[in-house]
Amino acid sequence: MNLQEVVRGLRRRAQSKIVLLVLDGLGGLALEPGGPTALEAAATPILDGLAQEGATGQSIPILHGITPGSGPAHLALFGYDPLEFRVGRGVLEAAGVGLVVEKGSVAARGNFCALDAQGRITDRRAGRLAGEQAVALVQRLAALRVAGCEVQIRHLRDYRFAFVIRGSGLGAAVSDTDPQEEGARPRPAVAQAPGSELTAKLVNDWIEQAMSSLSDQPVANGLTLRGFSTDPELAGFSDLYALTAACVAVYPMYRGVSRLVGMDVIEFAGERPEDEFAAVRDNWAAYDFFFIHIKATDSRGEDGDFEGKAAVIESVDRALPGLLDLKPDVLAVTGDHSTPARMRTHSWHPVPFLLWAPDTIRLDRSQAFGESACMHGGLGTFQATSIMPLLLAHAQRLDKFGA
Amino acid sequence: MNLQEVVRGLRRRAQSKIVLLVLDGLGGLALEPGGPTALEAAATPILDGLAQEGATGQSIPILHGITPGSGPAHLALFGYDPLEFRVGRGVLEAAGVGLVVEKGSVAARGNFCALDAQGRITDRRAGRLAGEQAVALVQRLAALRVAGCEVQIRHLRDYRFAFVIRGSGLGAAVSDTDPQEEGARPRPAVAQAPGSELTAKLVNDWIEQAMSSLSDQPVANGLTLRGFSTDPELAGFSDLYALTAACVAVYPMYRGVSRLVGMDVIEFAGERPEDEFAAVRDNWAAYDFFFIHIKATDSRGEDGDFEGKAAVIESVDRALPGLLDLKPDVLAVTGDHSTPARMRTHSWHPVPFLLWAPDTIRLDRSQAFGESACMHGGLGTFQATSIMPLLLAHAQRLDKFGA
Repeated sequence: MNLQEVVRGLRRRAQSKIVLLVLDGLGGLALEPGGPTALEAAATPILDGLAQEGATGQSIPILHGITPGSGPAHLALFGYDPLEFRVGRGVLEAAGVGLVVEKGSVAARGNFCALDAQGRITDRRAGRLAGEQAVALVQRLAALRVAGCEVQIRHLRDYRFAFVIRGSGLGAAVSDTDPQEEGARPRPAVAQAPGSELTAKLVNDWIEQAMSSLSDQPVANGLTLRGFSTDPELAGFSDLYALTAACVAVYPMYRGVSRLVGMDVIEFAGERPEDEFAAVRDNWAAYDFFFIHIKATDSRGEDGDFEGKAAVIESVDRALPGLLDLKPDVLAVTGDHSTPARMRTHSWHPVPFLLWAPDTIRLDRSQAFGESACMHGGLGTFQATSIMPLLLAHAQRLDKFGA
Repeated sequence: MNLQEVVRGLRRRAQSKIVLLVLDGLGGLALEPGGPTALEAAATPILDGLAQEGATGQSIPILHGITPGSGPAHLALFGYDPLEFRVGRGVLEAAGVGLVVEKGSVAARGNFCALDAQGRITDRRAGRLAGEQAVALVQRLAALRVAGCEVQIRHLRDYRFAFVIRGSGLGAAVSDTDPQEEGARPRPAVAQAPGSELTAKLVNDWIEQAMSSLSDQPVANGLTLRGFSTDPELAGFSDLYALTAACVAVYPMYRGVSRLVGMDVIEFAGERPEDEFAAVRDNWAAYDFFFIHIKATDSRGEDGDFEGKAAVIESVDRALPGLLDLKPDVLAVTGDHSTPARMRTHSWHPVPFLLWAPDTIRLDRSQAFGESACMHGGLGTFQATSIMPLLLAHAQRLDKFGA
């Protein structure tokens, strides 16, 4: 009997409201031994107060030592074992822009790129092609037709697009065409397992047409596809936990993973924390559970911008009273993984976790919200898949196990 | 998807060097409530400094409350789930002295013992028979021939020897002949499952000849065999983790388990910690990963010698600068299990763990290396099988999991 089966058997409805606030890539490292992390360097009076009134700990997204991608890290936060459920990048990105990837369809993530006269990639991001130009190219490619299938593409952000192919007899075990290095030519799609040969052939047919169609472009004269994947058939979040759930996120991929598990995705204007919190406020009565995703912590981490990451965290802290005014019963503040500015990339380090639930929390000695407090926090070190049961429990939404 | 599959899929080569320093039976208990353990009583300025510059935690070798044998404890340290992979004592001891136990061969660990006129064991260790005399007896027994199989025996240490039987149709499900108590007669080998009957018969034939051959001995006039086992077919360590690995250990069994997983076993002179560290230095360029095994902590624990155990730990601490001078990227100091002098035996208590990795560590508040610091350390309490992923991660030898 696994975690999901246990929780499904014990779930009960209640009036309580749960907020899961995820600061992407929240965990970090100090710049100097003994110094603060970005989270610790940031002035966060509100978060520190929540830590004093609540309890902290640290989560392991996948396994000790394993650096998570954003997809599996979010699945874990939502209570789906990322080792059991594998969601490809293609499916995530497609879902993020509202492209449903049914069983039997195959999705991939596309990049426009720049090719030289010999067809070698000179810029994998086509000079970070502006979204407006990319939209025009996507429209052009959307008109292409390949016999034996239907291809749908949709613009994501900047030089990126989502690609979905529908037809019969399509498997998703297809290799990336992106060689992941400049100076190399895009590769053909190749079937990695029986049952995916037709997919590879149709994808290559489409790519041939697309390359020809882009050949007049000064910069974005090529494309690559990667992360071929299909419907992971996840149990629905609302059914699993007996609650109504909504996602408030700016970036398509996070909207995608939320949509994949069956959350409603709220549309709103603006990209600041206060805009996201306002979106929660506007929909407060309609949902039991809100997943709020802040992207910029991860982006500043990947930029190597320690101060910038701290500033983003401070901006969240300043906006938090607007969220707390709603009086959630349970509020968790955490990340999906660590992205230390010093490393400029995702890392395996445990993720700080703060749980605030005035009616049900057992207080620990945490005096602040930071890696150091969390690693010594009363909730201990636990798998990220334990977060949903913890939130449900503190919201009094789980019955007793056994007599 | 299990831990090994995840790690195998993410491994990448790098220039970094990893050292896993294992003080056998390191964990202990205080002699008096509130007093220090042997590790805490020992003066260890170097280890304490590493704890301040690194992070600590404690590992569970098998499961909470389960006392490990040396074989499964080391398998766990090397990242092999000891509940999945069972390595018999016979195979471990044989591998330790370079006897390969191929699939279909069966190994056991032998003891010379003393028998009275009625064939009852009066001393299970034949008066702790000296190695020189045991070597002569092993040579004598090596000349015996049993129809239908080939038997190979090799001296281990003192009164112990390794026994390997080769032939066709041999299963390893054979009971120990060692009754594990004095006053009892050695038992016949008995098949414990279909397919091992022939092994039991051939082993008993060999024992009959061997007993006859030893009957002229004043003390070591008998023998027992235990731990019948065969090749556990472990994935190769180097392939699993994409690194070259060497073992520096004095005792055969630890050399054996290292050889079993495919490490090179380094030959060197001397038995002191500084001799072992010198062997690492002499081979530093040739390997990515060094497993160093210190036996005497466990021996003093089993002797009930609290002060002696602390003295061994101090001798390791004094020698450590010679190891640190090599500038490893990642150094872990831990045990395979606990052996509290107060209990004079292995125990189930968690094992202190110290991780030092200047480029990638997230510091915790540990000020010293000891059980008390480790149980509150920032790495938390984790399965020993997480140690290899943690070492690889901190050595930047693992890619990201998922998109």
